Amino acid sequence: MMKRVLVVLSALCIAASGLLFVASAQDQSPEEAAAAAIDQRKSLFKTLRYNIGPIGAMAQGAPWDAEVAERNARRIAVMATMIPEMLAVDTSAFDNIETTALDIIWENQDDIAVKAQALIDNATAFADVVAETGDFAQSMAAFRAFGGSCGNCHDNYRTD
Amino acid sequence: MMKRVLVVLSALCIAASGLLFVASAQDQSPEEAAAAAIDQRKSLFKTLRYNIGPIGAMAQGAPWDAEVAERNARRIAVMATMIPEMLAVDTSAFDNIETTALDIIWENQDDIAVKAQALIDNATAFADVVAETGDFAQSMAAFRAFGGSCGNCHDNYRTD
Repeated sequence: MMKRVLVVLSALCIAASGLLFVASAQDQSPEEAAAAAIDQRKSLFKTLRYNIGPIGAMAQGAPWDAEVAERNARRIAVMATMIPEMLAVDTSAFDNIETTALDIIWENQDDIAVKAQALIDNATAFADVVAETGDFAQSMAAFRAFGGSCGNCHDNYRTD
Repeated sequence: MMKRVLVVLSALCIAASGLLFVASAQDQSPEEAAAAAIDQRKSLFKTLRYNIGPIGAMAQGAPWDAEVAERNARRIAVMATMIPEMLAVDTSAFDNIETTALDIIWENQDDIAVKAQALIDNATAFADVVAETGDFAQSMAAFRAFGGSCGNCHDNYRTD
């Protein structure tokens, strides 16, 4: 009985949150939708940076923590699958919304996909080296390609 | 030769970004650090919502897409590992910064960890059902616990 009540309750909660999701998307103006897309895009990249930051700090002399390095790299490999999705939303018509994204992003979706996949592959390769060796020097050798994958996109598609 | 130049260049880029990371953290006032922590926290939860939203919409009648449902659930299972980290940064002293996080979060870190793990487990269980069956009805049965895992935390630790 209690279980049935809980199932019904949770179904109602899911229904309510589903409606909320649909409603909020439908009520947006094109500018509001672009602002939300840019905010979501920044949210992803901030969370990627949150994870690569500590590895970059280790490369700079912070104590080597293989567990954190592997964990963060695997998170990045998963989250990077969202990069092409978020960069597919063309917000170039809304110049009044602050963003570091360059308009050429929307003429280079194939290249964006290739570069995002390179980040996924290099983050995974780094995590594998960390998991297999635990060794700082070997891991840093793999970090060159991983860290470079960020810059490969930023150099072309982001303002300084 | 070219390869060596590239290796040195990428090492310099990593060094620069590492320094940037350290410098930006050191230059912050306590209030700036709290604002950054809250912004990062919101970024994570927005990106979780970005992924559960389409599954919630499917529960509401949007076309069933098993591939997207599984993919998004696995992303959530990985990203949810960051929830305890981000909710560990106590920002309760900064009432002037807008947040929906309730102060009791910082008295209930153990419970936060348990509830985040439940989200990870239920997202993974949902993704496994989708992968194994591809069936909408069976997947939705598993979605009850998964969707409910969001509410379990929100009901206690977030303002309406």
